[in-house]
Order: sequence, then structure tokens, then C-alpha cells
Amino acid sequence: MIDTLKQHIGKYIRISEQDHEGVLKFFNAVHARKKENLLSEGKICRSNYFVVKGCLRLFFIKENGAEQTIQFAIENWWLSDYTSFEKQQPSGFYLQAVEKSDVLAITYQHQEEMLQQFPIMERYFRLMHQRANAAAQFRIKGLYGQSREELYRQFKSRYPEFVQRIPQYLLASFLGFTPEYLSELRSKKFS
Amino acid sequence: MIDTLKQHIGKYIRISEQDHEGVLKFFNAVHARKKENLLSEGKICRSNYFVVKGCLRLFFIKENGAEQTIQFAIENWWLSDYTSFEKQQPSGFYLQAVEKSDVLAITYQHQEEMLQQFPIMERYFRLMHQRANAAAQFRIKGLYGQSREELYRQFKSRYPEFVQRIPQYLLASFLGFTPEYLSELRSKKFS
Repeated sequence: MIDTLKQHIGKYIRISEQDHEGVLKFFNAVHARKKENLLSEGKICRSNYFVVKGCLRLFFIKENGAEQTIQFAIENWWLSDYTSFEKQQPSGFYLQAVEKSDVLAITYQHQEEMLQQFPIMERYFRLMHQRANAAAQFRIKGLYGQSREELYRQFKSRYPEFVQRIPQYLLASFLGFTPEYLSELRSKKFS
Repeated sequence: MIDTLKQHIGKYIRISEQDHEGVLKFFNAVHARKKENLLSEGKICRSNYFVVKGCLRLFFIKENGAEQTIQFAIENWWLSDYTSFEKQQPSGFYLQAVEKSDVLAITYQHQEEMLQQFPIMERYFRLMHQRANAAAQFRIKGLYGQSREELYRQFKSRYPEFVQRIPQYLLASFLGFTPEYLSELRSKKFS
């Protein structure tokens, strides 16, 4: 499991074998069952999560009781509630495994310690957050004013593997569609 | 101007006086007129911008021709189109000064060079992106399903100085309100 993260880090920064081993010691392996919550509303988000296998989602409960997914993470993506994680304050979100997932978790304290011992890792996390930040800008743009068909088309072109992997009813809710409308869009490409 | 950035960096990382001076050499001062575009759709976003004085906004043009603001930056905030900046590819956004603004700009190439010479700055930018990432999650949550009154209340409590500063018609469009509805909400607190 740890090898997946090691490879991922190696894609972004140059790091010695010894430092690499030191870094990885700060992570814990988590095997989450399908629909298991790694975080619940009102709790403090203790960890930042890296998906080795499977899929996580961050969602909140709307006033009408419905779950609204705001982000997904599949293999090689990081996910956390970064407000709760950074400030170690109660979260307004749930973080849940969409399917059976293998995840590496690093607590806030461990992340701070690790970054102090291995400052080269600041670059890796800077690049991860910069990428997530870019994705969030794209996402926010999509939530305003784009036609729904355009939104789907753009998501598919930016994250092809993602659209394949995510269960359709979750993808529909994420994009603000009904499942019926999504399946209509998907069938269009064959027509 | 450069002192504002120096102080801001000093709040987040410990850095020697000499390194500090070295870092600041990579920035250019930009004096933007009110409504001046620092970036236009179709152009490559060359720089990452730090607001010393004034206010920037990132917006795009909707299909109906209306401008939709997705992010603001006031004093001590960074703003850029991070997809265009990171990949040096054409942007889908405009970056504009809301009012007369003093801004420090660092080009992509200068940022890379600066980070190589002063890796301590990776921590500063990691923290900035992590904070922006947290803000984006909060923002995306707000765009789904919250009542409009709740959305306004939460923004005001998270960013009090922000709600004071931004012109009302822009704040209304940002939150997805009509200006009339926003002024109704603002008058409520006195009633």
C-alpha cells in the first residue's frame, strides 16, 4: 500500500531513499468498508487521506435531509476537510468510503512533525494543494451558469477515469443532475 | 509595498533577513487601475498575484453574456487562475482589479526559480494553498442547497472585513442574489 504513495511522491519531488522511508513511517493504513465514515459532522477531522485503492467522498447533509457530495477522491488523490484539519475544529462534513477502500492517513500532528523533519515534503504538499485549488476553481465555475450538458462534457474531458468510476447516482447528485438526466446525456454520445 | 508581503510571509514561516530579501527580488509591483484586467480569457495566466492594497476578482463570462465572479482577493490574499498558471495554458477567466489596486506579481518561471533557491518558501505557499483549498470547500458547500440567508450569514461570520469591502452588486452576484435581496438581508440585522 505504502508503495503507491511512495511512487506518487516520487513523481513530484526528488527525495532520497532514506528520507522516503522516514516520511512513510508517519502514515497509517486504513481499510475502510463500503459506506464507512472516516469523519462525521461535529467531529474534528484528525487526518488527511490519500487514496491507494477505492474512492472517498466529502459530503454534507442539506436542510432537506439529502446528502450533497462536494468532492470525490479516487486513486492518487488526497481528501480531507481542510478547515477542520487545519484548525482542528469540528467539521460540517462527512468523509465516507464510496466503495471498499485502502487509504493512507496522516494526522495533523504527524503531518506537522513530518514536514519539520523532511521539509522537502512541503513542495509535494504545495503542489497537491495547488492542484486541488485549480480543481476547485474549475468546479466553482461549473456550479455557476454553465449548461448542464456542458458541465458534464467538461468534467468528462478533465477527469475521464473519474466519470467511469463514480456510481451514477452519486455523479448525478455531484453535478446537480437527476440520475435520469445523466443517463440521457451518457446515451447521447452513442446516438 | 514589498513590506506588506514581507510581513505576511513572516507570519507563516521563519526566514532569515538575507533570504527574505532574496525572495522579494522575484516580485514585480503592479499598479492596476479600477476595472483593469490583469488576465483575459484565452490568454495564459503568467503570474500569481498578492494583493497589497485594493481588491481583485476572478470572473468568467456566462453564456448569457453576464459576468460571474467566482473569487475575490483583498489585502493579504493571493489570486490567480491556477490551472492556467500551473500548466501555462490559455485561461477561461478574467482577473480584474475591482478598485485601484497595488499588487505584487510573480511569474510562473520566477516562482519556480525562487522556490528552487529558497525552498523554505514551499511551506509558505503550501499553507496559502491549503487555506485557499479550505475556503473553496466552504464556498462549494455554500453553492449547494444552503438557504440564501444562511449563505450570507456564514460568509459574514467567516469573512467580516470582506463583506464590508466588496461593492454590493458584486457581492450579490458572487452569492447568487439579486442586489435587492442582499440589501433586504443587510437591513434585517437592524430590525
